[in-house]
Amino acid sequence: MAQVQSPAPATVGKADHERFMRRVIEMAKQTSEAGAGGPFSALIVKDGKVVGEGVNRVIAEKDPTWHGEVSAIRDACKNLGTHDLTGCVMYTAGESCPMCYASAWWARIGAIYFAATFEDARQYGNFDDSVINDALKLPNEQRKVPAYQILHEEILPLWKAFGANPNRARY
Amino acid sequence: MAQVQSPAPATVGKADHERFMRRVIEMAKQTSEAGAGGPFSALIVKDGKVVGEGVNRVIAEKDPTWHGEVSAIRDACKNLGTHDLTGCVMYTAGESCPMCYASAWWARIGAIYFAATFEDARQYGNFDDSVINDALKLPNEQRKVPAYQILHEEILPLWKAFGANPNRARY
Repeated sequence: MAQVQSPAPATVGKADHERFMRRVIEMAKQTSEAGAGGPFSALIVKDGKVVGEGVNRVIAEKDPTWHGEVSAIRDACKNLGTHDLTGCVMYTAGESCPMCYASAWWARIGAIYFAATFEDARQYGNFDDSVINDALKLPNEQRKVPAYQILHEEILPLWKAFGANPNRARY
Repeated sequence: MAQVQSPAPATVGKADHERFMRRVIEMAKQTSEAGAGGPFSALIVKDGKVVGEGVNRVIAEKDPTWHGEVSAIRDACKNLGTHDLTGCVMYTAGESCPMCYASAWWARIGAIYFAATFEDARQYGNFDDSVINDALKLPNEQRKVPAYQILHEEILPLWKAFGANPNRARY
């Protein structure tokens, strides 16, 4: 995929980053105190304006993918009517897990700002995001959640047809 | 987080894996031919029964997180009424990107079966999932989508309060 690098606008300075992050921290405080999930939250900002927001609601929604960043990205895409968030910056209460980092990557977000580290989440919340990063460095079959390949020969024709279709989905 | 390893039930054999994967491949064919997204799809199976399914609808839903696996995990959680898919196996048309792999990890899925590789998706679809894996191996600030830490000192009190709260969300 042709990835377009989209840095924060030059007009966004340190004071703006801190202002958005303080709002993110307040959101994290509210969702965690409500018992909806961990103290995680995120904002998506474009041209200095908030275009999407989300908080962790894993418990409340019974959805393990309902992290603040994924939720904020989905909200921004809905608000802007596109799957492409080129030109946007993400502010997140905590260092993004691989799910959220890759979500931002697919959304073509240009840069991420975070406050708490994996180590904070591990030390105070018993969330261990870094082990997933470590697992991703291993071959598929050797991971704690192992992945095994089967039926490769049966899906190859589908990919070849997809590649040969000039009207295929591109994104 | 206390991760519970949940291997595929011993009663599930090669024929079952192939049967589920053939259904996944058919789903991938349908969604890609409809132009809804790439040829990606997934099933979640528990005790030999399908409990969730999803296809890639990034284009159709204008949502970059709408990959087959994430969609199937959300569907299974909704159907089973829990964020915890311990004891489930995931079948996916393509090797999972970090977003989808981490989604499965958070959902406590026990094992993953896939048919197409990152290389197939790159060669025939111009999707390059492996570069995200590569980015995750780099320090935050050196990634193509860089992540910068700010206001650490302002979020620490929130984490300390969370850690000290006996009624905090646990998952």
